[in-house]
Amino acid sequence: MSALDPAVAGLLKHNEAGLIAAIVQQHDTGEVLMFAWMNDEALHLTLTTGRATYFSRSRGTLWVKGETSGHHQYIKSVALDCDGDALLVQVDQVGAACHTGERTCFHTALTDDGDQGHHTDQIERAGEEQ
Amino acid sequence: MSALDPAVAGLLKHNEAGLIAAIVQQHDTGEVLMFAWMNDEALHLTLTTGRATYFSRSRGTLWVKGETSGHHQYIKSVALDCDGDALLVQVDQVGAACHTGERTCFHTALTDDGDQGHHTDQIERAGEEQ
Repeated sequence: MSALDPAVAGLLKHNEAGLIAAIVQQHDTGEVLMFAWMNDEALHLTLTTGRATYFSRSRGTLWVKGETSGHHQYIKSVALDCDGDALLVQVDQVGAACHTGERTCFHTALTDDGDQGHHTDQIERAGEEQ
Repeated sequence: MSALDPAVAGLLKHNEAGLIAAIVQQHDTGEVLMFAWMNDEALHLTLTTGRATYFSRSRGTLWVKGETSGHHQYIKSVALDCDGDALLVQVDQVGAACHTGERTCFHTALTDDGDQGHHTDQIERAGEEQ
């Protein structure tokens, strides 16, 4: 059992692993920074500590964003979507959101601005980062 | 097999159902509109037709956003995140993104602006919408 407010917990539609998707956005610029997952305890901690906390599917543990990197996310607002399975978490991001050092995690363009060469370059660079 | 460009398909890290998360954002205002899922064919159609196409987990079929509502999403850009399991889809949204008629799907606030009564009201309203 998590300490999440039952009024909130009752609105959530968890996936088969008990998780809710979390979309993380810089509150003032609108940049979408990253995508992660929360269980009820992560959401409880996010709402009560004011620091974004997620659930790591690979490690099976909670993690506070910035705990090791210093790149904390201070919560500005959290909203649930209409079918209860995704959260929009608006934050003030310290430094880079991405573990690669980029500001956001969405740095591999799959579309181009009319320059096909650029498109190919982007995909090749993404492959090198893996 | 989908018709998705193999160079793109090779970058994707699908979930156990063969899907990638899709975060949909209004390209100019930065509003996060909705959260959905794509399989390779949905991504292929999104990239080649210029209209956002998703995979419905409940119906097990592709759906073109706006096909019945007229609330199409015209693609401005698509980007993949650093671990290959989430897309940021920037669109020009016609009308409401949410099936409830609201502009975005994220209309249930779980945080407040210092007014606890407002917080409770928001949760109660969300319950009525279900």
